[in-house]
Amino acid sequence: MAEIVAIKRSTPEGPVWASLDKGVLRLVLSNPPANVLSVATMAALQAQLDGAMDDKAIRVIVIAAQGGVFSAGHDLKELTAHRSDADRGRAFFELTMSRCSALMQSIVRHPKPVIAEVDGLATAAGLQLVASCDLAIASEQSTFCTPGVNIGLFCSTPMVALSRNVSRKQAMEMLLTGETIDATTARDFGLVNRVVPREYLNHIVGKYTQTIVSKSPLTLKIGKEAFYAQAEMSLAEAYDHAAKVMVDNMLAKDAEEGIGAFIDKRQADWTGE
Amino acid sequence: MAEIVAIKRSTPEGPVWASLDKGVLRLVLSNPPANVLSVATMAALQAQLDGAMDDKAIRVIVIAAQGGVFSAGHDLKELTAHRSDADRGRAFFELTMSRCSALMQSIVRHPKPVIAEVDGLATAAGLQLVASCDLAIASEQSTFCTPGVNIGLFCSTPMVALSRNVSRKQAMEMLLTGETIDATTARDFGLVNRVVPREYLNHIVGKYTQTIVSKSPLTLKIGKEAFYAQAEMSLAEAYDHAAKVMVDNMLAKDAEEGIGAFIDKRQADWTGE
Amino acid sequence: MAEIVAIKRSTPEGPVWASLDKGVLRLVLSNPPANVLSVATMAALQAQLDGAMDDKAIRVIVIAAQGGVFSAGHDLKELTAHRSDADRGRAFFELTMSRCSALMQSIVRHPKPVIAEVDGLATAAGLQLVASCDLAIASEQSTFCTPGVNIGLFCSTPMVALSRNVSRKQAMEMLLTGETIDATTARDFGLVNRVVPREYLNHIVGKYTQTIVSKSPLTLKIGKEAFYAQAEMSLAEAYDHAAKVMVDNMLAKDAEEGIGAFIDKRQADWTGE
Repeated sequence: MAEIVAIKRSTPEGPVWASLDKGVLRLVLSNPPANVLSVATMAALQAQLDGAMDDKAIRVIVIAAQGGVFSAGHDLKELTAHRSDADRGRAFFELTMSRCSALMQSIVRHPKPVIAEVDGLATAAGLQLVASCDLAIASEQSTFCTPGVNIGLFCSTPMVALSRNVSRKQAMEMLLTGETIDATTARDFGLVNRVVPREYLNHIVGKYTQTIVSKSPLTLKIGKEAFYAQAEMSLAEAYDHAAKVMVDNMLAKDAEEGIGAFIDKRQADWTGE
Repeated sequence: MAEIVAIKRSTPEGPVWASLDKGVLRLVLSNPPANVLSVATMAALQAQLDGAMDDKAIRVIVIAAQGGVFSAGHDLKELTAHRSDADRGRAFFELTMSRCSALMQSIVRHPKPVIAEVDGLATAAGLQLVASCDLAIASEQSTFCTPGVNIGLFCSTPMVALSRNVSRKQAMEMLLTGETIDATTARDFGLVNRVVPREYLNHIVGKYTQTIVSKSPLTLKIGKEAFYAQAEMSLAEAYDHAAKVMVDNMLAKDAEEGIGAFIDKRQADWTGE
Repeated sequence: MAEIVAIKRSTPEGPVWASLDKGVLRLVLSNPPANVLSVATMAALQAQLDGAMDDKAIRVIVIAAQGGVFSAGHDLKELTAHRSDADRGRAFFELTMSRCSALMQSIVRHPKPVIAEVDGLATAAGLQLVASCDLAIASEQSTFCTPGVNIGLFCSTPMVALSRNVSRKQAMEMLLTGETIDATTARDFGLVNRVVPREYLNHIVGKYTQTIVSKSPLTLKIGKEAFYAQAEMSLAEAYDHAAKVMVDNMLAKDAEEGIGAFIDKRQADWTGE
């Protein structure tokens, strides 16, 4: 496979800044002061994810944020402004929730691994974004919260992602009390993979992306897709499905190359086929 | 909403003592010496839970126990006495198991949050009661056990609740060996939320109930119901369901009030509507 | 029940050595240097498990390994050799994956508890074997890995077992990076129950087997079967199923004996009926 070219495609305007370097698409939430997931921000993030689907130059995606807050979730002012609509906002609320649910699911269904790089507060749909990523690395200063209950709006969509990361009692404590947990607790709960000093955050995320970029993109795609598919099946169905996936994977060029390279003790040269 | 009146409705007779104070219904198992869940005890607990469903004065429920044992589970003497029935006890065993399963599910389906306050041993159906609550706070002296295997009667119904709190290998260790775990292990396993010194147990549970009483009861009801519903759905179904719940929640008066109060930086005044 | 006779039925030939002592069937992977799960090794393991199904002398099964590696998973050389088949190996890959999936599921469905005794590296299908056992005890030197992604072949079947032991982000970290975790991390993730010094490994596993051998085999069978069945059901279905299981269990002789012995404070004498 051709060496990955270090294309830079910065988009320093808009609520999401995108840059590509050595196979890593870095998406930075830039909607100050709290990086709220307004409809425009969600659309920008969605567009980047959609564009990355078939782009061979992109091998892994990092979602990070500008400023001291990762994301404070939905844009309450934007939502509230629509209360004066003829339908009391219903249509706009439906639009917001369906866009948000689609965005989160497109991370899970994305063919490339997605890593959340968290430095600061992640609340409500902001926490949902972290929970929806395949991996999450957080700085020691990061905190996590589902505070909807404090404002009369239970974090019902965030909890879909939260409860697929965290055990029931722990999820319920966060949801019912709305209280904040620190980064170490989030790691112990299973919401993030690793907690690191802020000054090493970018470096450690880089270690993960470098590792992932070194793998066959086809193999990652096959495996990620199968992971979330089998998670919703019974044991027997999951084995039937995974065994088929494994056979097809064995017959792909990258597995032949990878296994051959392993046996011959040489570096594999992936074609992504 | 009117201030919550401090009604006391003590029922100092019977196997479950109930008292209501500042929105907190406190149910105390009082069936010495081991607080076994006899048919009468389960009926008393069920009656209290049913009565609390639509009682607006009740905002959160605490299940605690008298004496050094939280609950030792089913009443083995009561069960054994029915072995001399014409059907060798089958009808009575069926009654016991179906009452117990209904009781545990009515905690999960209850519109108000239910907290287990555990001080001492919780075994078999007693552990199931802890596992079925939304939250559980335990004293350091508390211990947990599914000892059915020791007496030839596997803890099959308790494990339904246990295995929805604790990972598979950990649940299987408890179930296959029948051995006791301490409170800290129970917290590490995800069976309880917090372990506190005995002398602070009541105080800490009070912190939780106070926090929960300060929230909109409608929001708690919506959220708790959605939590357990979506937990049994696929990701796509869960998002469809939760997004609908969230839109309806947005259109409720309490969300309008809560979000408005948040934006205006004032205290919300819930109507529960 | 008659005292368990200390039959020894060593089979010191072949890739799996079997010995029976005091109710414990010990199966030792002996396929040096890496105890790979070749088709022959899987067949030998399968034959031992099948033979143990109805053998009343066997009360619990331990799967261990010879040498410093527990198991390195599938036999890559055997798989690669079939690439020159007319069908590029498809039929042989299908055979391998279906045999492996059947083997892992027969551990889960086995009427007797199965314990993995791990000392050394367990990777890919070797890790899957550990994850598929009811319990796993590991030495401090043990390490765990799903390295398929390194050779272009995602660990899709191993992840079926892994993801039913370990939370999503933790499983994804192992699968996407292919990196190795140590025994303590494996315990924190829920993949193994206990980590012990190598010199105590056999002794500690013996404590578990001794405990399990002291229980009613009928009760263990009923409970293990119900555990994995209810894990795939909704809460309501799980309670309906478990309540029926519990009533039947109550009516079995071993429960009558066990509860009677408990009430009378004497040792139970199991008949396995």
